[in-house]
Amino acid sequence: MDVTSRVVEIARNAKKAATVLAHLSSDAKDCALSDMAEAIIRQTGLLIKENAKDVEKARKMGLSAAMIDRLTLNEGTIEGIARSLKDVACLPDPVGKVTSMWRRPNGLLVGRMRIPLGVIGIIYESRPNVTVDAAALCLKSGNAVILRGGSEAINSNIAIANILQIVLTDHAIPEGAIQVIPMIEREAVREMLQLGEYIDLIIPRGGEDLIRAVVNESKIPVIKHYKGVCHVYVDAGADLEMAVDICINAKTQRPGVCNAMETLLVHQGIAGEFLPLVARHLGEAGVVLKGCDRTRQILKDIEQAKEEDWYQEYLDLILSVRIVNDLDEAVGHIEKYGSLHTESIITNNYQNAQRFLNEVNSSTVLVNASTRFSDGFELGLGAEIGISTTKLHAFGPMGLEELTTTKFIIYGNGQVRT
Amino acid sequence: MDVTSRVVEIARNAKKAATVLAHLSSDAKDCALSDMAEAIIRQTGLLIKENAKDVEKARKMGLSAAMIDRLTLNEGTIEGIARSLKDVACLPDPVGKVTSMWRRPNGLLVGRMRIPLGVIGIIYESRPNVTVDAAALCLKSGNAVILRGGSEAINSNIAIANILQIVLTDHAIPEGAIQVIPMIEREAVREMLQLGEYIDLIIPRGGEDLIRAVVNESKIPVIKHYKGVCHVYVDAGADLEMAVDICINAKTQRPGVCNAMETLLVHQGIAGEFLPLVARHLGEAGVVLKGCDRTRQILKDIEQAKEEDWYQEYLDLILSVRIVNDLDEAVGHIEKYGSLHTESIITNNYQNAQRFLNEVNSSTVLVNASTRFSDGFELGLGAEIGISTTKLHAFGPMGLEELTTTKFIIYGNGQVRT
Repeated sequence: MDVTSRVVEIARNAKKAATVLAHLSSDAKDCALSDMAEAIIRQTGLLIKENAKDVEKARKMGLSAAMIDRLTLNEGTIEGIARSLKDVACLPDPVGKVTSMWRRPNGLLVGRMRIPLGVIGIIYESRPNVTVDAAALCLKSGNAVILRGGSEAINSNIAIANILQIVLTDHAIPEGAIQVIPMIEREAVREMLQLGEYIDLIIPRGGEDLIRAVVNESKIPVIKHYKGVCHVYVDAGADLEMAVDICINAKTQRPGVCNAMETLLVHQGIAGEFLPLVARHLGEAGVVLKGCDRTRQILKDIEQAKEEDWYQEYLDLILSVRIVNDLDEAVGHIEKYGSLHTESIITNNYQNAQRFLNEVNSSTVLVNASTRFSDGFELGLGAEIGISTTKLHAFGPMGLEELTTTKFIIYGNGQVRT
Repeated sequence: MDVTSRVVEIARNAKKAATVLAHLSSDAKDCALSDMAEAIIRQTGLLIKENAKDVEKARKMGLSAAMIDRLTLNEGTIEGIARSLKDVACLPDPVGKVTSMWRRPNGLLVGRMRIPLGVIGIIYESRPNVTVDAAALCLKSGNAVILRGGSEAINSNIAIANILQIVLTDHAIPEGAIQVIPMIEREAVREMLQLGEYIDLIIPRGGEDLIRAVVNESKIPVIKHYKGVCHVYVDAGADLEMAVDICINAKTQRPGVCNAMETLLVHQGIAGEFLPLVARHLGEAGVVLKGCDRTRQILKDIEQAKEEDWYQEYLDLILSVRIVNDLDEAVGHIEKYGSLHTESIITNNYQNAQRFLNEVNSSTVLVNASTRFSDGFELGLGAEIGISTTKLHAFGPMGLEELTTTKFIIYGNGQVRT
């Protein structure tokens, strides 16, 4: 069978499975997830063996140490994968939840009930743990999933899918519920992105290039974020110690992720005191600063920030710094250069806190807290399947609820329309 | 200026206006809407004069009487338009509503707040009242709107936009908030559908051909429904009088709309009694029936329903009728032939009512009520901007809330991530 026909067959199986999944009880899904955790642990040896093939090939191809690290499975990472399966089993089931219900003047009782989206395609890069995480979240939310991981992880991903599918079969759930695309050809992705008849949503997870390629080719709705140019604005009269703690955390706790701070905005009234203080701490943490002209009058040794730096997602220990006249200028800067991802204000001023929350329409807006909290787990969604910086369907971190939609359910007693 | 540049300019103005609209107070929006109602009434003469040009041209082009009727404005229809503006002013403002808020273990208070989508493009056929309705709903929800009506209504639509824009200016709201595309060239729509940089959502309103053309060309997310093949299932033991009333209402109250019944499914246990009864009433209302073999053993004079008839949205006084063995077969029929629009069960059986509500995943599912209630006003959304039979972002009738998304707002007191 050629690549195209095989992908169509996978998509068709997924759609068939989705109609079964939509009506599985929470217990049935949770038992399967729990058994999957045990099966993953039981098959640790097999997984490490199959993963070793991927790792060896990656070494031969000269992949970076960081990429090989993300690709490698060992007993510890496999235990982590199993634990996250059990965690998903413990989350509340979003399906069937009636989010609101009201009575109409004619007596009709109208409610909205959560139902699954149907079939979800996930396209991602090398980490095999994403295979399990995404499969678990889709199963829990009653969706069938088609997983297309990086070709570097193909043996690991096929091994994982085999283990999960055996558990599905044991639980009389169609194997089509969780499928990995087993071909490494690019053609397979292209074909997948045409199948709007079978697939309801595509979620790409990875770098900006991957995401742009998916968006350009897809005939299916895509939920995406290209990048996170996250800002922290330190207001006049902020608690400077708190501001330093948050800046250090937002920039250095994990600089390579999308919710790390990339630009620091500082009110002119406290710049003279705050900038030398925060620069010293950031410097100790190895952060290189690039500043606007006014910043460089205070921090004389730092590099000049160029116009393009304000748009930059460094994903590294580099930070753009600008002094602003007031809150308006800070909001204006974020509106012009931001990516609708995550912004935080550090302030003790009530009005400014409220204004920042109202006026900044990024997907996550914080007062006196680190940008690093922009994350499904941290916000209490229980999980994270991805993050959206476009406003349709979901905006910000996406949990299980974002893998559902609502239908109207209506209880009548003979009403007709007049 | 050529068509393309002009459309880009319109889209750019809309985006600029959207940032202002997002932060307008409810009062400011409601005052503008109320003044628009008065301006429309004051300009009745002008509107009728401009509309007469469209009507005359439509007559010359030989458009059907029904189309000319929908196109024509008179004092009565203009009063109706003004009233609907006032009605929208009275609806609650969705923007700024915090839909939920919860505290995290680390003390962060996390909420979700409604914000506008941004810029919405509406593409529709000839009725000029849609111009005003859509403009009002977008303004109320803080979105800028670009309206592209049918070329038959171009003079009416331009006149309406001029009146609304003068009121906007009086209220210091940018004119870019409400714009009509003033060119009749098809090229203008094609260009509009490419401008994902400026336009956040496209809503086509019209026949299946219009919608398919928009979906095929659009680079922007489209919320759509192609057709409504709505079912009524009359269960064994249903109240037959209620069933007749609902069937008559669902089929004949307005047969040309998407929430009218197109297929009647009848449980075999009551078919012998119910079918002659309902056939007599439907016949008196001028409805022509097409039946399955078993139906035709009871209603001997009716035409045979062919396989393709089960997929048919007649939009006319024609009805497909099938006898099914049980609820399972009814649900299976709807799953196979339905359009995810609206389905109703008529039953006195508690279990079957609950099963139908749970198992049928169409956008609107009713018990003992007419399919005609699948409508934003009737369901209590206060308004209807369109209807979606695809599951992303909105599913079913869309009101003001569906023109918004939510951002996360987070109140902290110095939290950092560990």
